[in-house]
Amino acid sequence: MQRIPVGLVGITGYTGMELARILLNHPRFELVRATSRTEAGRPLVDFYPFLQGTPLAELTLTPPDAKDLAQACQVVFLAIPHGAAMDYAAELLAAGLKVVDLSADFRIKDAGVYAAWYGLEHRHPGLIGEAVYGLPERYAAQIAKARLIANPGCYPTSVILGLWPALEAGIIDAHDIVADSKSGTSGAGRKAAVGTLFAEVSDSFRAYNLGKHRHTPEIEQELSALAGADLTISFNPHLLPINRGILSTLYARLTSAMTQGDVQALYEKHYARHPWVRVLPAGRLPETRWVRGTMFCDLGVVVDPRTNRLIVCSAIDNVCRGASGQAVACANLMSGLPLDDGLKLAPLMP
Amino acid sequence: MQRIPVGLVGITGYTGMELARILLNHPRFELVRATSRTEAGRPLVDFYPFLQGTPLAELTLTPPDAKDLAQACQVVFLAIPHGAAMDYAAELLAAGLKVVDLSADFRIKDAGVYAAWYGLEHRHPGLIGEAVYGLPERYAAQIAKARLIANPGCYPTSVILGLWPALEAGIIDAHDIVADSKSGTSGAGRKAAVGTLFAEVSDSFRAYNLGKHRHTPEIEQELSALAGADLTISFNPHLLPINRGILSTLYARLTSAMTQGDVQALYEKHYARHPWVRVLPAGRLPETRWVRGTMFCDLGVVVDPRTNRLIVCSAIDNVCRGASGQAVACANLMSGLPLDDGLKLAPLMP
Amino acid sequence: MQRIPVGLVGITGYTGMELARILLNHPRFELVRATSRTEAGRPLVDFYPFLQGTPLAELTLTPPDAKDLAQACQVVFLAIPHGAAMDYAAELLAAGLKVVDLSADFRIKDAGVYAAWYGLEHRHPGLIGEAVYGLPERYAAQIAKARLIANPGCYPTSVILGLWPALEAGIIDAHDIVADSKSGTSGAGRKAAVGTLFAEVSDSFRAYNLGKHRHTPEIEQELSALAGADLTISFNPHLLPINRGILSTLYARLTSAMTQGDVQALYEKHYARHPWVRVLPAGRLPETRWVRGTMFCDLGVVVDPRTNRLIVCSAIDNVCRGASGQAVACANLMSGLPLDDGLKLAPLMP
Amino acid sequence: MQRIPVGLVGITGYTGMELARILLNHPRFELVRATSRTEAGRPLVDFYPFLQGTPLAELTLTPPDAKDLAQACQVVFLAIPHGAAMDYAAELLAAGLKVVDLSADFRIKDAGVYAAWYGLEHRHPGLIGEAVYGLPERYAAQIAKARLIANPGCYPTSVILGLWPALEAGIIDAHDIVADSKSGTSGAGRKAAVGTLFAEVSDSFRAYNLGKHRHTPEIEQELSALAGADLTISFNPHLLPINRGILSTLYARLTSAMTQGDVQALYEKHYARHPWVRVLPAGRLPETRWVRGTMFCDLGVVVDPRTNRLIVCSAIDNVCRGASGQAVACANLMSGLPLDDGLKLAPLMP
Repeated sequence: MQRIPVGLVGITGYTGMELARILLNHPRFELVRATSRTEAGRPLVDFYPFLQGTPLAELTLTPPDAKDLAQACQVVFLAIPHGAAMDYAAELLAAGLKVVDLSADFRIKDAGVYAAWYGLEHRHPGLIGEAVYGLPERYAAQIAKARLIANPGCYPTSVILGLWPALEAGIIDAHDIVADSKSGTSGAGRKAAVGTLFAEVSDSFRAYNLGKHRHTPEIEQELSALAGADLTISFNPHLLPINRGILSTLYARLTSAMTQGDVQALYEKHYARHPWVRVLPAGRLPETRWVRGTMFCDLGVVVDPRTNRLIVCSAIDNVCRGASGQAVACANLMSGLPLDDGLKLAPLMP
Repeated sequence: MQRIPVGLVGITGYTGMELARILLNHPRFELVRATSRTEAGRPLVDFYPFLQGTPLAELTLTPPDAKDLAQACQVVFLAIPHGAAMDYAAELLAAGLKVVDLSADFRIKDAGVYAAWYGLEHRHPGLIGEAVYGLPERYAAQIAKARLIANPGCYPTSVILGLWPALEAGIIDAHDIVADSKSGTSGAGRKAAVGTLFAEVSDSFRAYNLGKHRHTPEIEQELSALAGADLTISFNPHLLPINRGILSTLYARLTSAMTQGDVQALYEKHYARHPWVRVLPAGRLPETRWVRGTMFCDLGVVVDPRTNRLIVCSAIDNVCRGASGQAVACANLMSGLPLDDGLKLAPLMP
Repeated sequence: MQRIPVGLVGITGYTGMELARILLNHPRFELVRATSRTEAGRPLVDFYPFLQGTPLAELTLTPPDAKDLAQACQVVFLAIPHGAAMDYAAELLAAGLKVVDLSADFRIKDAGVYAAWYGLEHRHPGLIGEAVYGLPERYAAQIAKARLIANPGCYPTSVILGLWPALEAGIIDAHDIVADSKSGTSGAGRKAAVGTLFAEVSDSFRAYNLGKHRHTPEIEQELSALAGADLTISFNPHLLPINRGILSTLYARLTSAMTQGDVQALYEKHYARHPWVRVLPAGRLPETRWVRGTMFCDLGVVVDPRTNRLIVCSAIDNVCRGASGQAVACANLMSGLPLDDGLKLAPLMP
Repeated sequence: MQRIPVGLVGITGYTGMELARILLNHPRFELVRATSRTEAGRPLVDFYPFLQGTPLAELTLTPPDAKDLAQACQVVFLAIPHGAAMDYAAELLAAGLKVVDLSADFRIKDAGVYAAWYGLEHRHPGLIGEAVYGLPERYAAQIAKARLIANPGCYPTSVILGLWPALEAGIIDAHDIVADSKSGTSGAGRKAAVGTLFAEVSDSFRAYNLGKHRHTPEIEQELSALAGADLTISFNPHLLPINRGILSTLYARLTSAMTQGDVQALYEKHYARHPWVRVLPAGRLPETRWVRGTMFCDLGVVVDPRTNRLIVCSAIDNVCRGASGQAVACANLMSGLPLDDGLKLAPLMP
């Protein structure tokens, strides 16, 4: 069976590493290009020493040249910062490639909203319309036909999957939702910074960007579509002293009398055809380690009759499901492959 | 200056250890008794090896005998589980001692509520009325005159101090509050249990007891008093892979138009006379390490105009401020000492 | 292709979990039995909630009955404590099964040495002789023909692979070796115990059992065979606040003038045919995360001319390479499968 | 009682933070200057937010001006990198100040050795001779009379205190010592760097600079003095995923037949007058948390008769005992104060 050549632009971050990990055992994709402006000519193992002895170790880094990528690859993953990604995407699309952009550049459909939250005018607004938001449970058909994927943010993946059934069924007040999200430190990226040093993060805990995080408009855009009306959410991130994992605790007011059993049944039915979303049995709550290294989104659903609230705990691996794994899932669909090719990943416990 | 003799009942947990740490440098208290039913006769250092070479190392454990404690001590700290503590408290009070009970046994004023949440009939309901809830910022005068202190729970300390100014000023809807609290693992105690093993907690994160934690009625009792009306709160604890520290993120709806500056001023004025509660300047959010090993409760106040919510982050050290340090503060007041004797503790960073 | 049925005796520990993780994606083995004396009848997912939604989730636990196991399986993995394992092994072998014993019961060839270090008379000394020490790089041929595998200990795996080339080549003094080993806390097992609680292990570090650890005779037995003479090693374990991973730093005196290049070449040549042992290029030292979740043993070799010492850092994942993964490798060979079936595992980074 | 004014040059690192923590409760020292070239004019709390509400919070940063420091202070602590420290030290000494230099600049008595290991010619070799190595157990008398203290390195403190009694008594072979040291990540400083990011260090472990660490000549200089002959040591550092703490495991060959009791007695007698060095009872081994935040150096002594080795585990807090606390101890002696003023610190457990 012939393998489909794919490329990776950007190797310095954790999403690049995770793509390499996944692609190493992918049955159909072959990573044939990994690019770096400054390190071309060196083997990938110099930057990913954990790859020593694997088929990817000796892949030689190349400059990020669109023509070369277009000749060598069918799909390219952009694992570079927002702002930079939009230009690469435009160039690679023009060269005939399919692109999965892991940055935020094409997630927000309203260029004005993008500019307001990211402090940056979009330089390729014409491409925003055709970009498909790469949440496979929701947009599989469109993803399969897309040239350009806006790979979802990590926090939004956890929040959207956690609220979708309730919002769509109309059982909660769409205008009174609080998301208290906690992310592992890999979510802050692999850039040298005092704030994410081990001795600053370990044995401590803090919130940040309360009400102001850039994933907010992305969440609101997708939840509004599900609710059928514009909504505003209180989204509040926190930094966990763990490597990987997001747990979002989602608080909503029930608008009708629903029992634990009712909501449990609603969620289980909703996700019955989506095996990566695991609705835990009543009484069990997710742990980020249960999804470590996997595509799973684990949901724990709690009806609190004392306060008439629905509380949903939603856990994902921010690096796999919340970034590189989801990107591979999209690339699978874009390439006519089964959604879960290379993604039948089992959690590492402990 | 003569030292005041105090005793400790219960040495197996983290609160006992922390009391020893604090009392080691207390200018007026002297720990003269530490009791253990099973280990009497052995020196304290056998159980607290970190005390080697200090004046407390060779303190000989004694059986928990009320007469002996009453002869030797003026104040006794109960660092034993709820259920057991109420009987000891009754006995020690009868013997003429002052008692600071670190358990939950005397926190709930309504014996029926206690029974409902703790699954246990109170065996000394007559003492509940005279027990003073040991939150010094709120009940200093009563604490000073009390024989029996119900030392506050760790989560309640963080939640009550975080919401007090807003509730008392009536700027938030008292019936629409969500507390998303995260606690270090020392909060789960020092009992051998699979669920709190290192390899179960480290590099992971989870919620537990959503809407059902036993600290809920304690929080509601105190917040209702502040609001002047019975209220129900959605209280939701999570387990952090850190040793010490609680961060409660508190979500409330503003009932009037308040700016960041308004709320900031309200909080700063409210706590101006209470130096342990530090209202951080606007734009700064608490980190649990900034209160590590101290009596501080750090508050970060955020007004989110998009959702018209007040968000308060409240950070304490669950073992010191949330347990043993607060117990010593109460004992100070009960003994006519300055509130902060032995408690001018500086945070350990990192 | 027909799948080979295998069984697991013992589900409460981390090695059982890890076997489940590996077998989930094994191309030829199918886990058809998982036994528990006390929990028979319940589905495996009740104990391994991370398996929800996978083919193993609904596997019903059975009592550990030899006849049933023999009818259902070809190979059985014993993931139970030493002392208990020897009896099960004897019974299962008598019933016609092949057995991979993850405990220490058959590792020590001299029953007297076993008795001395484990405080236990061996009850099946007749089986010790036929048990093969399951280190595939060293005993692949014997493993392939064995009925009973003594799966190596985690520490010994790291120490033996780290010293093999040097000992066999005779370039170090076999009687002057120090192994300073550090293990993640999963190595202490999943038993409720105060000493391995999160709040006892996190943000701390300690040695234990210096010179007395039970893996010592196992290491000495295998190293003596390599050196061609009885040797004694100073083996000294430490407890790391990490989940998985062992790093052994091995100190030996060079007996002849060897350069970094000489030793590097010796090690690279020695392991050229053993891709799981990765000799890192000169100047690079192993990190336990580079082998996380994998079968790799990463070796960093340093010649220190100032002290004329050879220092080898040897890193493995104690749960995978040091236990369950190695057990599967043995089972592969015993079943006529390629060594690395189901074991082409990529490290999880970070 | 009048307070002695002291100053701090360099506020960006963990040693500066720790000095502030210690000085906050020091009975005789008052921190009156904290300098920063780039941030002069701002209050210290902007950089040390954990100091909010304390007397040091509003200390205004000043430029590092020697005249100003000399007028305002009696002692100045240099918490800046080696290379830069030597010039400041020279200037401050010339201005009449006493100086405690926390860098390595004056630790090595042989300027050639300094140049070889630090890659830097010493610009003030004339001052090296008068600098006193600030290990109070060893050099208290000289420290009391010194103008310039070379504050010991963290690793050397642990290694020297661990080997001193054995070397001085001549019971070990001085030419066959291996030090396997493990340090918390605060030891790497507070500089933004990828290698010490949380997600690079957490849940992992590695060695670094084997045989090449810059603390080696410092250790050899002091151990040679103790042994009465030049010796070479194999010193090998490792990076622990903890905030604070060093554990050095020290391996030496016994040159005569010594029992556990003999060595235990030797060590206990040696350190009887030095209460900060705690020789643990036989059978107990140090844990870094037992010394967290303190001046203690905990020693666990093990005689291994099988290999005729002495193994010493030596634990300190690298930030307190290994840096800022030791600096304050030296300043105490230089100022005619009791050694332990402000340093009666109790360990934070857990």
